[in-house]
Amino acid sequence: MSHFSVAQPVLFKHCDPAGIVFYPRYFEMINDAIELFFTDGLRSPWPEMLQTYGVPTASISVEFAAPSRHGDLLDLQVSVTRIGTSSLGLMVRALCADELRFTSHSTLVQTTMQGRPAPWSDRLRPLFSNFMNEIPNDA
Amino acid sequence: MSHFSVAQPVLFKHCDPAGIVFYPRYFEMINDAIELFFTDGLRSPWPEMLQTYGVPTASISVEFAAPSRHGDLLDLQVSVTRIGTSSLGLMVRALCADELRFTSHSTLVQTTMQGRPAPWSDRLRPLFSNFMNEIPNDA
Amino acid sequence: MSHFSVAQPVLFKHCDPAGIVFYPRYFEMINDAIELFFTDGLRSPWPEMLQTYGVPTASISVEFAAPSRHGDLLDLQVSVTRIGTSSLGLMVRALCADELRFTSHSTLVQTTMQGRPAPWSDRLRPLFSNFMNEIPNDA
Amino acid sequence: MSHFSVAQPVLFKHCDPAGIVFYPRYFEMINDAIELFFTDGLRSPWPEMLQTYGVPTASISVEFAAPSRHGDLLDLQVSVTRIGTSSLGLMVRALCADELRFTSHSTLVQTTMQGRPAPWSDRLRPLFSNFMNEIPNDA
Repeated sequence: MSHFSVAQPVLFKHCDPAGIVFYPRYFEMINDAIELFFTDGLRSPWPEMLQTYGVPTASISVEFAAPSRHGDLLDLQVSVTRIGTSSLGLMVRALCADELRFTSHSTLVQTTMQGRPAPWSDRLRPLFSNFMNEIPNDA
Repeated sequence: MSHFSVAQPVLFKHCDPAGIVFYPRYFEMINDAIELFFTDGLRSPWPEMLQTYGVPTASISVEFAAPSRHGDLLDLQVSVTRIGTSSLGLMVRALCADELRFTSHSTLVQTTMQGRPAPWSDRLRPLFSNFMNEIPNDA
Repeated sequence: MSHFSVAQPVLFKHCDPAGIVFYPRYFEMINDAIELFFTDGLRSPWPEMLQTYGVPTASISVEFAAPSRHGDLLDLQVSVTRIGTSSLGLMVRALCADELRFTSHSTLVQTTMQGRPAPWSDRLRPLFSNFMNEIPNDA
Repeated sequence: MSHFSVAQPVLFKHCDPAGIVFYPRYFEMINDAIELFFTDGLRSPWPEMLQTYGVPTASISVEFAAPSRHGDLLDLQVSVTRIGTSSLGLMVRALCADELRFTSHSTLVQTTMQGRPAPWSDRLRPLFSNFMNEIPNDA
């Protein structure tokens, strides 16, 4: 399985009164990891890409396997689970050492500035394949 | 269908460079709505309840039906989809006028401070039923 | 002293591992209060106003007098301390019952979409005066 | 002038509908930079230190010199402006290439878990001096 890795330390700002990551913060981490996947993994930096397209998230589901604490160093592993005409299935797994913390599955859609689906370019499609996860239904 | 309603204006802070709600902000709105459901709908204020218990979210999935913009007034409708021994299935639907913006399904678990499942009290269980959604699989 | 009041409950999302409000969350509260001051206090809703102008914050300083905890109900009191040609001095005081939690002083500037200072309208200037704080240097 | 440097890319999540950093996000960046200053610059990791002490921010003021945009790479420079018995004056300057974006001045206080001032250790005090800014009143 191929994936794009992002090191994400758990900082004070992420944590709630129970001393664990407040889960909406995980969605910021997931969004950051996907942005870095495009910017560094696919060489399609969002600051440029978003001049022409939108990439809204159509759906997302997350299973939280174990809590994360201040000081943990998470490895966010982004992989591709499905390549559509203008949509993209992504999985993000967060591990701390070898312990799974969460698994997210989301669908992004590339759109025009007017919000209509816009097909992925011929440059991007084979790059997506490089990060294809062979076990797409892993939760 | 019975539900608990929370009025949530879309403020400047919620919106991204595309002028629509940045979706991790929706998870803060969902968490706020569920907190207010406990505090006002069930008369179990989290500030007190969380002295004794944790209520971590074990899983959550959201379908984003249409984008929300600065100035929209959302009606967040919280209902119960499943009552477990120490878990609770919740649905949150966001409407703007009659347009659906998103539907979330999540599972909360009540835990001890050590993180072990803790059964819901006899006081809370019938209150959950008051907000039971008759169409639990509505997405 | 005249001011515009916003009720702001301290929710779970605002609090840090020490069980008190994480101070960057106060800046979201301050921004929300100033947005509501324009929208409801001055009848200049930001969703409309920001189609034509920007209102960046040029500077802000905050003194944190006492910590706030989950469940506190804050009264955010917005008042005007200085009316410039295209700038506005604002004070936001947060009280819980009669205890002061913080005082912020900030300067907003109205700008064109190209970022140049844009004078306040003749409609807005007298409205600002209605919320003028007679003790502008109160910290 | 000696300082501790943190590289902070401006990500999608930081930006508002005007396409520039939403200023409350800067306070998260400032807090992150100060956390990394303690953890990496002073070898006093907050996850450990905060088992015994609190480090609340007593006051903070920021001058925003120029807006930051999605894709900018900020250099956050943390330096010490004042070493008190249990307080610490800190300056954080954000630069993008050679352009100043903001300057913050804040005062942290080390406290016991009961919120009383707690003097800095003999180990930390000379380390603070290593990052002393010779021009403390630079704004």
